[in-house]
Amino acid sequence: METIQIGMLGLGTVGSGVLQMIQHNEDKVVNVTGRQLNVKRVLVNHPERHQDVAENIELTTSVEDVINDDEIQIVLELIGGIHPAKEYIEAALRNHKNVVTANKDLLATYGPELVKLAHDHHCDLMYEASVAGGIPILRTITNSFAADKITEVKGIVNGTTNYILTQMSQQGWSYDQALKAAQQLGFAEADPTNDVTGKDAAYKMVILSQFAFGTQLAVDDFAVTGIDHLNGFDVQQAGKFGYVIKLVGIAQVIDDGVFVEVAPTLVPADHPLATINNEYNAVMVTGEAVGDTLFYGPGAGGLPTANSVLSDIISVTKNLVLKTNGNFFNNYQRQYIPAAPRDVVYPYFLSIMMPDVPGQMLKLTQIMTEIDASFSQITQTEADGLAHVVIITHEMTAQQLADFKARVAKDSSINLGAAYKVLK
Amino acid sequence: METIQIGMLGLGTVGSGVLQMIQHNEDKVVNVTGRQLNVKRVLVNHPERHQDVAENIELTTSVEDVINDDEIQIVLELIGGIHPAKEYIEAALRNHKNVVTANKDLLATYGPELVKLAHDHHCDLMYEASVAGGIPILRTITNSFAADKITEVKGIVNGTTNYILTQMSQQGWSYDQALKAAQQLGFAEADPTNDVTGKDAAYKMVILSQFAFGTQLAVDDFAVTGIDHLNGFDVQQAGKFGYVIKLVGIAQVIDDGVFVEVAPTLVPADHPLATINNEYNAVMVTGEAVGDTLFYGPGAGGLPTANSVLSDIISVTKNLVLKTNGNFFNNYQRQYIPAAPRDVVYPYFLSIMMPDVPGQMLKLTQIMTEIDASFSQITQTEADGLAHVVIITHEMTAQQLADFKARVAKDSSINLGAAYKVLK
Repeated sequence: METIQIGMLGLGTVGSGVLQMIQHNEDKVVNVTGRQLNVKRVLVNHPERHQDVAENIELTTSVEDVINDDEIQIVLELIGGIHPAKEYIEAALRNHKNVVTANKDLLATYGPELVKLAHDHHCDLMYEASVAGGIPILRTITNSFAADKITEVKGIVNGTTNYILTQMSQQGWSYDQALKAAQQLGFAEADPTNDVTGKDAAYKMVILSQFAFGTQLAVDDFAVTGIDHLNGFDVQQAGKFGYVIKLVGIAQVIDDGVFVEVAPTLVPADHPLATINNEYNAVMVTGEAVGDTLFYGPGAGGLPTANSVLSDIISVTKNLVLKTNGNFFNNYQRQYIPAAPRDVVYPYFLSIMMPDVPGQMLKLTQIMTEIDASFSQITQTEADGLAHVVIITHEMTAQQLADFKARVAKDSSINLGAAYKVLK
Repeated sequence: METIQIGMLGLGTVGSGVLQMIQHNEDKVVNVTGRQLNVKRVLVNHPERHQDVAENIELTTSVEDVINDDEIQIVLELIGGIHPAKEYIEAALRNHKNVVTANKDLLATYGPELVKLAHDHHCDLMYEASVAGGIPILRTITNSFAADKITEVKGIVNGTTNYILTQMSQQGWSYDQALKAAQQLGFAEADPTNDVTGKDAAYKMVILSQFAFGTQLAVDDFAVTGIDHLNGFDVQQAGKFGYVIKLVGIAQVIDDGVFVEVAPTLVPADHPLATINNEYNAVMVTGEAVGDTLFYGPGAGGLPTANSVLSDIISVTKNLVLKTNGNFFNNYQRQYIPAAPRDVVYPYFLSIMMPDVPGQMLKLTQIMTEIDASFSQITQTEADGLAHVVIITHEMTAQQLADFKARVAKDSSINLGAAYKVLK
């Protein structure tokens, strides 16, 4: 039986998972593809630390050993980050190697360029594992919504922040307490910046938007708000109104535009996204024909991510058998126009601190009236001589919200602590 | 641009949805496949009833007009039922037409035979729409779990019964009330037998098991219990214990065997399947590497099902472009061995009526002790001079449950109304 030789760049958690799965599930892979998979060479920084696998695999500290090996047909890039991953992938593609990667930063930043390079060299470039770890969302969008018009893709695409938010909501913890717990359990890194500022989720929304709408946008094209300034009080208040706060990435077609945002968002307790807890991820895809669908699974972790990598390897292998490599992973393309702020309509959760004196609520309602917006639910509580007013508004446009913020900013007695979208 | 000509057998709700989607999403289909799709001929019983589409499409009452048309490369079978759908599909495959169908009865009954015929004639046979309408579950299992060992696939795969159960649970309705409401809203047919007896769900579990485990089993190989004898009282009691009753199809690898069943099942309120309500479907797939994943969407309906049909058509079209038709939709095969009853372990919900006299509970606990099983939760209420005892047991084997039933059957004073599995 023919063997497909694989070269690997990096041997961390995901890489070890890939090795383990290839060994454990050899029978099934042979059954499905008619080929055997073998990891021949692995690029590592410290070969002496990987002696457990060195018996069957050639460890090397030189990337050339991997990408210049004529036997190797598939290169897995699992080192992460932009550089030198980008240069390695480019070199591999130029050497006519098919490439599988889990690198969301790279794909969200240089995706179109790398996709074109792969296509020009008749090679596959697949990156299912770059979004939502174990959830096969990219392939599903490509294969199963190909004839439908996707109108919205939204979801919880960062496990670290979802773990923190779940603990804040269920245990009543502060952000700092929940972050510390997440770090102790390995759900958050020592430097959690990329996760808690929403940047990681933003990368994933860039890739999801590309698959859902055929658009090519950059993380700088849309607003990204993390959870690092989220207040435990607001989480509890949202709960009393019947909502949970989740870090939701949303990409929504509005007329001819697309509205994209990553932000803390109020999700009704009976909404499918409200039950996605801890490190799990979920992506909802809404199609004009199919309606609402949801895909749920582990958002990270060595083996779940390795499974997505393996599903890409098997797709590449099938293409090798069929001699059909070099087709686009996703070949749907469309121009991106940002939706106008007057067309983006949501209810909002507003958390406001102001002096507990007569006339303050009047000022607030006057501002709301001036921008032609109205309240749906209000709670006022008192703390330290200040009134803490929490409001759920009726639907208002992003333009109205901007006007509201501008007017409130002019009044030093009204302190707007948070303004979050509310999902229906 | 090359046009792919399609022939259609049947023009009901799904067929109309397919026509509508092909027209509405022509741009995207062209973008993805580089081909135009055109429905050329449609087999109907009463052409005069379809004059709205007759301008662009040739309507015919003769199946030969469709399957002998040299221009037609894809035949959609949408008439349903076993005969004559089977003969039509066979004739189409023998004429080297690729076939797409939504026919679960046929695929669950004659799947292996038809799959072989398609392969022998180098034609595609795809049937994504046969399971869970708008959820792209079959293609996901095939493509995205190819290297993982799936250990369990379970879910809510019948929208009619899920609608009825949701109403019974949320409105406190009886089975008859909920069924009538479902019929009025079009969620249940005038003759709901296939749905409410679990047969429809069983067909889908046959197909899901085939994709998940590579097994070829028949609906007669496993136990199927519907919801038509479900008691409103038990639904309410389950609710008080913190569970909802769902019609769950389960297929689970246990050692070298597979346990398959369709039955009313208690699902904990915080389990992802508990929030799947009304006509929606959801399938949970558990992989050794990936862990728990869930796929949620509309279980039926013209357009959602049409979307699954279209995703098959686009797969076939891509294969036509790549000249790779005739590969198996799912090519994972394995032998099926039913799991031994002593290896199938669940807690059970037992609903028992008995005379409200001293000594009855003693008899019940004696039986439980004899089979070495024990209670986790018990509630006893009284109605019409009878004691209604509802129990959640600790884990017990299917063998213990059978022993329990046999012993209870010998005692005419103990009437076991229901015994349902409890999910963890």
